[in-house]
Amino acid sequence: MQQLSVRHLLGIKNLTENDIQLILETAREFKDVINRPIKKVPSLRDITIANVFFENSTRTRLSFELAEKRLSADVVNFSASGSSVKKGETLLDTVNNILAMKVDMIVMRHASPGAPHYLSDRIMANVVNAGDGTHEHPTQALLDSFSIQDKLGDVAGKRVAIIGDILHSRVALSNIFCLQKQGAEVMVCGPTTLIPKHINELGVKVSHDVREALNWCDVANVLRIQLERQQIKYFPSLREYSLYYGITKKMLDELDRPIVLMHPGPINRGVELTSDAADSHHSIILDQVENGVAVRMAVLYLLAQM
Amino acid sequence: MQQLSVRHLLGIKNLTENDIQLILETAREFKDVINRPIKKVPSLRDITIANVFFENSTRTRLSFELAEKRLSADVVNFSASGSSVKKGETLLDTVNNILAMKVDMIVMRHASPGAPHYLSDRIMANVVNAGDGTHEHPTQALLDSFSIQDKLGDVAGKRVAIIGDILHSRVALSNIFCLQKQGAEVMVCGPTTLIPKHINELGVKVSHDVREALNWCDVANVLRIQLERQQIKYFPSLREYSLYYGITKKMLDELDRPIVLMHPGPINRGVELTSDAADSHHSIILDQVENGVAVRMAVLYLLAQM
Amino acid sequence: MQQLSVRHLLGIKNLTENDIQLILETAREFKDVINRPIKKVPSLRDITIANVFFENSTRTRLSFELAEKRLSADVVNFSASGSSVKKGETLLDTVNNILAMKVDMIVMRHASPGAPHYLSDRIMANVVNAGDGTHEHPTQALLDSFSIQDKLGDVAGKRVAIIGDILHSRVALSNIFCLQKQGAEVMVCGPTTLIPKHINELGVKVSHDVREALNWCDVANVLRIQLERQQIKYFPSLREYSLYYGITKKMLDELDRPIVLMHPGPINRGVELTSDAADSHHSIILDQVENGVAVRMAVLYLLAQM
Repeated sequence: MQQLSVRHLLGIKNLTENDIQLILETAREFKDVINRPIKKVPSLRDITIANVFFENSTRTRLSFELAEKRLSADVVNFSASGSSVKKGETLLDTVNNILAMKVDMIVMRHASPGAPHYLSDRIMANVVNAGDGTHEHPTQALLDSFSIQDKLGDVAGKRVAIIGDILHSRVALSNIFCLQKQGAEVMVCGPTTLIPKHINELGVKVSHDVREALNWCDVANVLRIQLERQQIKYFPSLREYSLYYGITKKMLDELDRPIVLMHPGPINRGVELTSDAADSHHSIILDQVENGVAVRMAVLYLLAQM
Repeated sequence: MQQLSVRHLLGIKNLTENDIQLILETAREFKDVINRPIKKVPSLRDITIANVFFENSTRTRLSFELAEKRLSADVVNFSASGSSVKKGETLLDTVNNILAMKVDMIVMRHASPGAPHYLSDRIMANVVNAGDGTHEHPTQALLDSFSIQDKLGDVAGKRVAIIGDILHSRVALSNIFCLQKQGAEVMVCGPTTLIPKHINELGVKVSHDVREALNWCDVANVLRIQLERQQIKYFPSLREYSLYYGITKKMLDELDRPIVLMHPGPINRGVELTSDAADSHHSIILDQVENGVAVRMAVLYLLAQM
Repeated sequence: MQQLSVRHLLGIKNLTENDIQLILETAREFKDVINRPIKKVPSLRDITIANVFFENSTRTRLSFELAEKRLSADVVNFSASGSSVKKGETLLDTVNNILAMKVDMIVMRHASPGAPHYLSDRIMANVVNAGDGTHEHPTQALLDSFSIQDKLGDVAGKRVAIIGDILHSRVALSNIFCLQKQGAEVMVCGPTTLIPKHINELGVKVSHDVREALNWCDVANVLRIQLERQQIKYFPSLREYSLYYGITKKMLDELDRPIVLMHPGPINRGVELTSDAADSHHSIILDQVENGVAVRMAVLYLLAQM
């Protein structure tokens, strides 16, 4: 049986292309499983997984929890609110305590970039990064690639535009790594204030014109404008953002070629996407959510073999 | 096998009398199950149910969760606090995301009347309304009828007085529909400020005298005075309410005929009921809680066949 | 088969020495279980346990939840936040409601000393005290004794110093009872403001000099300085506490005899213990956490037979 080259899924950056292909192929088998009447496999029976979320999350936590249950793992949830973290305990002590209770894998979301990497050097259990600040969100990038593969047959050679707030997005960075490793071309598009200055070093095209991006790409991955960060200076107002970067169904319909519309959710309808765009035949947004469970099952299953 | 006439349990209003009888008969079988040493049946193995609570609830959420586990369903809990709802996502997007993860049924509590009806028109999964604002709370009404049947043999022909804050109660409305469809007579009793003006149109008697109500009825279903709504104007003070509408054991003991005392909980001891009334032999309040698990098992089981 | 002399685990005070030995021996078998590849036993299949936490807790709730799952029990969690407790319901009504849903055992943490004792007189289900205010925390004391037995072969005849905030600690009181019943000698050590005045009546030595305590004992059980209680008057500042009572690896290394360092967690690194002390070969802090799951499995398993 093929194996991953890593013991943890911390980010896409340190995965090989083989790792990515192995995860996507394994996810394809699990997608069949979750579409059967009997949606469960006994693969991780006797494995205990702790979902340790230091930041709130709905869809990611739920998606991991369902992936774990479909694999028949034992699941415990730990959230920072109401926890000993507030009592001044260090991250490493918190996690070591959980592991001492014979937990085999840690799925962790943390506000600090690098937190899962720090942990992975110091503990024996497998660590899955479910988002570390503005750094990486590797399972999101993997499920995005899976969804492109599902829709277009292949990621290699495709042109993907990532549109929106690139600066504050862990989804953007993980997607850039994941797409490039598979031979896709990547463009980022957004207002200058929301694009990191060093982005060219990553080998991506940059555009500040959303129509240019849409005309160029096979796939538009539209990121969420994070309402909760509106206080950041130089930020265009939501109204300005929507005016210059908001995508409508009409814009998509009028393109010369088919386009695939993606969004990691939650959508702000009327800001980065109009409702008719989000619900159009171009959109594979709900397929992404479905594929997320299959991809997370694949990641957990493969890491448990390491 | 008999089937319900509906795919969702949104309220009692749109159930037939046959639906109600089918649910109550099925619940009777499940009540036997939860009183056996082995309290589980494999009926909903491979069904995944999400409890989606946009309003806090203890007993209802716990009762549904236990009902689901007794049926061997897979259960995931989702609460609005800490969720993407706060990030501006629409209700429909939130639920569609959960469903895309291959969830088969949604049990939902929401502050807005009609929210589960809105959803049920737009999604494929079965929806169970676990309380929508001041509108309906159908499983409460069903468990109340089950408890009356259990105690008095039949609902038909019985006189039921619903006493307290009728205006803000979803329990009252669902009970009126449920009791009338089964041929019971219903009276509502409370201060004029807490009784809706149009209530006569529903074919119920109205009284503002709690002694009159108690003398009239076979069953008194006493609602909770919602302490958290005291700011409403025209509301009698708690002290006044308790003085004029509070029910004591002595009042129940002195009636000419036996009376059955019910309460949907949580009780404010000393407000709508004195402790000695709540704990008297008239009370079937804890039986209602037990029956609630059986009734919810029946509802989930029957909807899963649709 | 041997049985406990009690139907509830409310505290150590009312346990016999036989009870304690039976729990520790049973825990030894369960420690083997949780270290096998298959970490589960079917012992409590068909038993439903509710974890009812009126105070936040991370490690204790997680440890009980894992113990319950390893025993194949059905588990439901109830926390006070967002519950009917806020709506004015009494403790007994809340618990009676949970029990009416056919729950077999209650694991309860409550801020009020004696709350689980009050309940146990009024309900049929087994009650496990998971901490009642500053009173008792019996499973912590049992896991501490288990860990001493594990490390030193026996508790009888050993000298145990409990160091820190004795006044506000439920861990201290339960440990004193547990150690004395097994024939250990106990010393408490801390600033006069943090040692209860009546402590001599319990037959323990008292010291205000941490070096004296360390020189005297075989085991130092160092309690957490509860940062959240700093407002208490006469309290030494954290800086003063750390200066006079903080324990370093050097202090432990320079003792004439081996010493075992324990801590119930969460640790305030740099306050009651330096990091090098907490992570030294003297420390069995993470063993305590592991043993906690085995001890809680033993308690739940034995009470379920009663």
